Amino acid sequence: MKIISFPERATWPALLARPVQSTEQIEAAVAPILAQVRQGGDAALIELAQKFDKTDLTTSGLAVSVAELDQAEAQLSPELKDAIRQAYQNIRTFHERQKQPIEKIETMPGVVCWRRSVGIEKVGLYIPGGTAPLFSTVLMLGVPAQLAGCNEIVLCTPSNHPAIYFAAKLVGVTKVFRIGGAQAIAAMAYGTESVPQVYKIFGPGNQYVTAAKMLVAKEGMAIDMPAGPSEVAIYADDTAVPAFVAADLLSQAEHGADSQVLLVSTSKRLVELVNLTLPTQLSKLPRKDLAAKALENSKAVLVETQAEAIDLLNTYAAEHLILSIGNAENVVDQIINAGSIFLGNYTPESAGDYASGTNHTLPTNGFARAYSGVSLDSFVKKITVQHITPEGIQHVGPVVEAMAEAESLIAHKRAVSLRLASLNEINPA
Amino acid sequence: MKIISFPERATWPALLARPVQSTEQIEAAVAPILAQVRQGGDAALIELAQKFDKTDLTTSGLAVSVAELDQAEAQLSPELKDAIRQAYQNIRTFHERQKQPIEKIETMPGVVCWRRSVGIEKVGLYIPGGTAPLFSTVLMLGVPAQLAGCNEIVLCTPSNHPAIYFAAKLVGVTKVFRIGGAQAIAAMAYGTESVPQVYKIFGPGNQYVTAAKMLVAKEGMAIDMPAGPSEVAIYADDTAVPAFVAADLLSQAEHGADSQVLLVSTSKRLVELVNLTLPTQLSKLPRKDLAAKALENSKAVLVETQAEAIDLLNTYAAEHLILSIGNAENVVDQIINAGSIFLGNYTPESAGDYASGTNHTLPTNGFARAYSGVSLDSFVKKITVQHITPEGIQHVGPVVEAMAEAESLIAHKRAVSLRLASLNEINPA
Repeated sequence: MKIISFPERATWPALLARPVQSTEQIEAAVAPILAQVRQGGDAALIELAQKFDKTDLTTSGLAVSVAELDQAEAQLSPELKDAIRQAYQNIRTFHERQKQPIEKIETMPGVVCWRRSVGIEKVGLYIPGGTAPLFSTVLMLGVPAQLAGCNEIVLCTPSNHPAIYFAAKLVGVTKVFRIGGAQAIAAMAYGTESVPQVYKIFGPGNQYVTAAKMLVAKEGMAIDMPAGPSEVAIYADDTAVPAFVAADLLSQAEHGADSQVLLVSTSKRLVELVNLTLPTQLSKLPRKDLAAKALENSKAVLVETQAEAIDLLNTYAAEHLILSIGNAENVVDQIINAGSIFLGNYTPESAGDYASGTNHTLPTNGFARAYSGVSLDSFVKKITVQHITPEGIQHVGPVVEAMAEAESLIAHKRAVSLRLASLNEINPA
Repeated sequence: MKIISFPERATWPALLARPVQSTEQIEAAVAPILAQVRQGGDAALIELAQKFDKTDLTTSGLAVSVAELDQAEAQLSPELKDAIRQAYQNIRTFHERQKQPIEKIETMPGVVCWRRSVGIEKVGLYIPGGTAPLFSTVLMLGVPAQLAGCNEIVLCTPSNHPAIYFAAKLVGVTKVFRIGGAQAIAAMAYGTESVPQVYKIFGPGNQYVTAAKMLVAKEGMAIDMPAGPSEVAIYADDTAVPAFVAADLLSQAEHGADSQVLLVSTSKRLVELVNLTLPTQLSKLPRKDLAAKALENSKAVLVETQAEAIDLLNTYAAEHLILSIGNAENVVDQIINAGSIFLGNYTPESAGDYASGTNHTLPTNGFARAYSGVSLDSFVKKITVQHITPEGIQHVGPVVEAMAEAESLIAHKRAVSLRLASLNEINPA
C-alpha cells in the first residue's frame, strides 16, 4: 500500500475521492432494455436472456418451481446448512429488535397521534450471478422482509446455486425467477405476465443493474439505496494486530479491482508492519490478482493525532469502518459518517458480512453521509394516525385557523371552523 | 362530484389511476440549469434569478441576513406567532418521541451489535414562493432536522414572507438563501461559493423543482421522497357529518386544479348529502375556481361493503385518508397503504396539515405503497456497530468461515481463521 504521511487538510478531498464513474453510456444502454420489458413482458425477458446470457428460458420457464427450491437442500453439506441457519437466526435476532411498539402520543388534550409500521406489500430482491453465489445477501434482504410481513417477496437471480435457493426458502421468498441484469429490475418495476410488479427493489448488481435501479427510481420506484464499489476504512493504532489488519484489508480487496481500501493510523510502525505482512497473505488467496489490483489503488494515511484521524474518517464516510484502536468504545460516538462500525481486534468485517446479525447492505461511495444500511425500516412504511376528540379540536382548532388563514388556505380553515361552530351550537357557551 | 356506483373490481385500476405527467420535457429544461449552477456557482444563481424571476440579487445578496430574520417577528400578529409556536411545540412533541434509545443486542455470547442514530450533518430545505407562504412546511421539515441534531440546516426560498423567516428562526435554520426553482436544488446539491453543499434535500415545489430533485437523486443525492399533486381520500358512512366531509374535500381541492379528491362510501344517502352541501361551501372560498376544477376531476365511489371499501382504499394508497366511519378505530389496522390517517368526525386533514403534531410531508401518487412520510428518521442515519470478544469470535467464526468459503471469498474466511488460530495459540486446546 502506498503510504501518505501527514497530508494537509486541503488535500483531503482529492486524497479521499472515489473514482467517478460516468453513467451516461450505461444508462443509454439500459433505457431501451427497460422499455422493451415494459412493453414486451415475458417474451422480452426470454429474448433478452437469449441475447445477453445465451440462456434459453423457453424450456425451463422464467419461474423456479417449488420442487426445484425444495431439492436445493439435499445438495448442500450439513455444515453449510447449519452455518446458514445460524446466520439466519442471528440476523433475525438483531432485526427483530428493530420492531417498535405503537406509542400513542397526546400532543394536546384530546389530540392523539401515533405511528403504525406496516410491511410493504410487495418487494423485489435481486441477487447477481457470477462466481460467488451471494446467498448471504438473500439472508440480509430476506430476513427483514420476512420480519416486516411483506406479503410478496420476489427474488430474481440468474444463479441457480442451491445455497441461494435454500436461503430463499428459509426467508420465505414467495417467487423465484431466473432473470438477471437490468431486465430483472425492469420486470419487478413494471411487472410482466409472470413477474409481479413490486413496490420496492433491493439488492446489489453490476453497473447495468445499478443504472436500471436508478432509472426506475427516477420514475418513483422505491429502491434500497444508490450503490458503488464496496469499501473498508481501518483505523488502527499500536494495539492492533498487524496480521489482522492486513487480513481485513484483503477481505475487502478481494471483492474486485475497484474495491476501496483505506488504512488510517497515527503509528508509522503499525502501517509498516501491515505492509510487511500483506504480500505473504495476498499470495495465499485464490483471488490474489483482483486483490492486488485493489491494493494498488489503496492508501495508508498517517496522521498526527486521533482527532485528525476521526475527522478524516468522517470526511471519507466509509461503508465499513474498523476501529482497531485501544479506545474504540470511546471513539465510536465521534464517528458521524459510516455505514457500519467494527470495534477492536476480534471484530473482522467478515463477521458482519455474514453472521453477526447486522445487515451487510450498506451505503458506499460516501452515501453514508445521508443513507443508512438496510434494516427492518427498509421494508416497512410508517403510517401516521391521529384521532381528535370534540375537546381536542377546541384546543388545536384555533391554531389551525390562524395558520391556514395566514397561508391563504381558507378551505383548510373552514374545515375546522365548521366543526368548532357545530360544537358551540351543541354546547352553547 | 361524479358518483360512480358499485364499480367492478376490474375497473378499479383505471378508476383510481392518477394523471400521468410526462417528465421528459421538464427534465430537458432542468438539466441545463443544474449544469449551469454546478459550473457557475453564485454567478449562475444571480443570472438565473434575473432570467426566470426578474429578480436582481446583486444588491440584496443571495443570503438573507440575520438582521432580516430577526426583524420578521415584529411584522407578525401576536395571534399568528402564538399559533406557530403552539404548532412548533406539538410537532416537536410528536417527533421527539420517535427518538430510540440505543439497545445493545447480544446475538451470540460475545457478539454484541447495536444501532446509533446520528443526525445528517448538512440538510437542505426548499420552500416555494407563490401566493401561499408555506411557513407550516418550514416547521414540518425544520423541527425533525433540529431534533436530529443536523449541524447545518440550509433553507432556500424565493419568498420573503416574515412568517417563513420567523418559523426558520424557531427551528434553528442556520442559513437562508433567496433562491427559488430548480437552481435552488442545484445550489444545495453541488454547493456554491455561498450555499453549502448538503447531503439530503427536502421540500415541495413545482414540476421543475421536482424534476431537479429526481435528477440529483439519480446522481446519488438523498431526497425526502418523489412528489406528485396532493390528495385526500375520505371513507364516510352514515355516522359522518356531510358538511364536515364536504369541507375536508374542499380543503384538499383548494390546493390546485390537479389536486386529487376521492370519496368512498357504502351509503348513497351520505354521498348525496355531501354533493348537496358542496356548492354552498364552495361559493364561500376565495380559491373557488381552483377548487371547482379539482372537484370536476374527482369521484365519489359507492361500494357494497366495508371490506370492499378497505380494499379500494388500499389499492389507491392515498396521501391523506380520512376514516369518517363509526368503527374507524377498528378499521385503521386494516389500512396497509396510506400516508396519514385521520379518524372520526373531529379530525380534519387540516389539523395534521398544521398543528396536531404529525408531519404533513407525505407520499402522494400511490407512493405510500412503499414510502413513509417525513419523520425524525428522515434526518438521521442509523449506523450499526458491533463488538466481538475473543469468546464471541469462537462462536460466530466457524459460521463465517463456512459461508465465506461457499461464496468463494477466501480472504473473508481467512480474516476469521487468523484470529481463531491466534486464540488457539494463546489458549491451546
